[in-house]
Amino acid sequence: ADVKKIAVIAGDGIGPEVVGEALKVLKKTEELFGYQFETEHGLFGGIAIDEKGTPLPQETLDICKSADAVLLGAVGGPKWDNNPKELRPETGLLGIRKALGLFSNIRPANVFDCLKEASTLKPEVLEGTDLIVVRELTGGIYFGEKFRREGAQGEEAVDTCVYNVVEVERIVRQAFEIAQTRRKKLASVDKANVLETSRLWREVVNRIAPEYPEVELEHVLVDNCAMQLLRRPSSFDVIVTENMFGDILSDEAAMLTGSIGMLSSASLGEGSFGLYEPVHGSAPDIAGQGISNPIATILSVALMFRLTFGYHEAAQLIEDAVKNVLDAGHRTGDIAVDKSKAIGTTEMGDLIVAAM
Amino acid sequence: ADVKKIAVIAGDGIGPEVVGEALKVLKKTEELFGYQFETEHGLFGGIAIDEKGTPLPQETLDICKSADAVLLGAVGGPKWDNNPKELRPETGLLGIRKALGLFSNIRPANVFDCLKEASTLKPEVLEGTDLIVVRELTGGIYFGEKFRREGAQGEEAVDTCVYNVVEVERIVRQAFEIAQTRRKKLASVDKANVLETSRLWREVVNRIAPEYPEVELEHVLVDNCAMQLLRRPSSFDVIVTENMFGDILSDEAAMLTGSIGMLSSASLGEGSFGLYEPVHGSAPDIAGQGISNPIATILSVALMFRLTFGYHEAAQLIEDAVKNVLDAGHRTGDIAVDKSKAIGTTEMGDLIVAAM
Ligand SMILES: CC(C)[C@H](C(=O)O)[C@@H](O)C(=O)O
Ligand SMILES: CC(C)[C@H](C(=O)O)[C@@H](O)C(=O)O
Repeated sequence: ADVKKIAVIAGDGIGPEVVGEALKVLKKTEELFGYQFETEHGLFGGIAIDEKGTPLPQETLDICKSADAVLLGAVGGPKWDNNPKELRPETGLLGIRKALGLFSNIRPANVFDCLKEASTLKPEVLEGTDLIVVRELTGGIYFGEKFRREGAQGEEAVDTCVYNVVEVERIVRQAFEIAQTRRKKLASVDKANVLETSRLWREVVNRIAPEYPEVELEHVLVDNCAMQLLRRPSSFDVIVTENMFGDILSDEAAMLTGSIGMLSSASLGEGSFGLYEPVHGSAPDIAGQGISNPIATILSVALMFRLTFGYHEAAQLIEDAVKNVLDAGHRTGDIAVDKSKAIGTTEMGDLIVAAM
Repeated sequence: ADVKKIAVIAGDGIGPEVVGEALKVLKKTEELFGYQFETEHGLFGGIAIDEKGTPLPQETLDICKSADAVLLGAVGGPKWDNNPKELRPETGLLGIRKALGLFSNIRPANVFDCLKEASTLKPEVLEGTDLIVVRELTGGIYFGEKFRREGAQGEEAVDTCVYNVVEVERIVRQAFEIAQTRRKKLASVDKANVLETSRLWREVVNRIAPEYPEVELEHVLVDNCAMQLLRRPSSFDVIVTENMFGDILSDEAAMLTGSIGMLSSASLGEGSFGLYEPVHGSAPDIAGQGISNPIATILSVALMFRLTFGYHEAAQLIEDAVKNVLDAGHRTGDIAVDKSKAIGTTEMGDLIVAAM
């Protein structure tokens, strides 16, 4: 049989709890569809700092590299925030993206009808909002040279933002491909009126665009995009942008849906390998209380099924189960209007498995 | 008498129309308060490219330098968008900021009660929102070295983000000062988990903070800030951040108020000199039709009175007149619910002058 290897990185905070529920869902699909998954657990982030002295142990990287996909919970917490750079969880995050060649971060921001009221936007503005932010993930100012030096006016710090043609081409092409499977609209976001990297970005986008004549392309300046996301969110389909802008805009987009506890993400490289994780963080304040929302992680499994394994039927089943459980009125604390009726992490996981 | 010199730069698109109304207001304050203003007009932006072959003619710069303050309409338009860099309006904008040493951009984002419904945010979320974004304006990735080069993977583009201690100190100190005159809360926004310039930024903020013990300081990561502006806009008082992040966040903040046609801004350096302009752009699509909204430019005069001249009483009078005219139900097209009842640019200006 075709055994799929999944590296499981529970991470910190609520990571282990939400991943636990996602693994139940995974198991249920083995029963229902005859899939076979081999899971291997790796230490990563804060817990890896504590136990191995580094946020990204070689062993964990090896587990990921030999897997077909990675399921990640969440990393980080105040405990490690003041550590030196090499001993911070986010250094592990940047490291794993680079080491696994995950140049593309895909963040769908769709509105769950039953959670519309959770958004701070007016429901009529949100109506029909269903967009994907495609963020370049291994280039730009995140990975350029950074240093301190003495300047004419005392100490100065330097970050370097670099993009080459190949880096831009592959992410832009991927975004066009995704747009072509959807509403066929692509917004390329840059700051071409100021940045040289943005001018290169725009040149590449314009060069590739004729290959996708059906896709309607608009160039949007990043400041304008931050506004338009608020003014007309439903008009966006696919947004593609560089690393730093993508960090900011994907979080803005996620928040405006009101569904941030429900959103999953994929980080992809060449081929079908991918790392899947919920958009929300490690929420150290509620960790260990069994009240966290496992839905985003469960939906990350569905995303993995679609993008890495091509298990579309099972993905649909998971997504439908989540929808049914929500429609039946079940809520974890983060999305409950009446907090007193909130259910726990395990209960939510069990209900979703049962609904499958 | 104490004659104040004001450099007037009407600029492109609706710039001349809205500046025209602001000058009427200025004149009215001469009558009412006995002020004396000497205005000198300069070409800038697109019109300067057309007439002088450069977006920022030396003559205009000289006019600004010999003035006590600058009133700017708006610059830019599609006509010049595809020009080479030296012949683009925004190059003039960056040039004037640098040449005049305007290192600080102050953008109040407050909600006009009578326009609350214009926001895409729920009114209860907006309630009490009144924040100021203090953006560093002459440093960072905007002004660092930018170039192309051949790399191992073909052509690459490079932008450099540089900040020195002095640049950070002066803007942060100004933000603390502003916070102290307000609700005494300062959010310093950076990406210290990734960028070296952000780590320098945060160090400086933490070093200066003890000088302002009454001001409550929080450090917010830029991606998180993009979310929190949507989730809890009213919890912010003063936000201080570097140039690129400020560009994005100040536009996001402006848009969420729903009052973008009403917002003014100040760009300041050392001393009392300042450049004042509406936040909205040159709106080439409606230029020349006499339907643009002059309120943001009129309120820029009020801001000039407060920050450069210390004419607080007159500033208050202008602000009250605007409020009264709006409360009486008068609207230009951009803010009218019933567009058929919208009034024109001149009519709005006249009503405000009359209300003074
Ligand atoms: C933790 C941080 C380094 C990371 C990033 O900025 O990429 C996070 O914000 C994200 O978006 O995954
Ligand atoms: C036109 C552009 C260069 C400018 C900037 O990015 O600073 C504008 O967006 C602004 O915010 O004033």
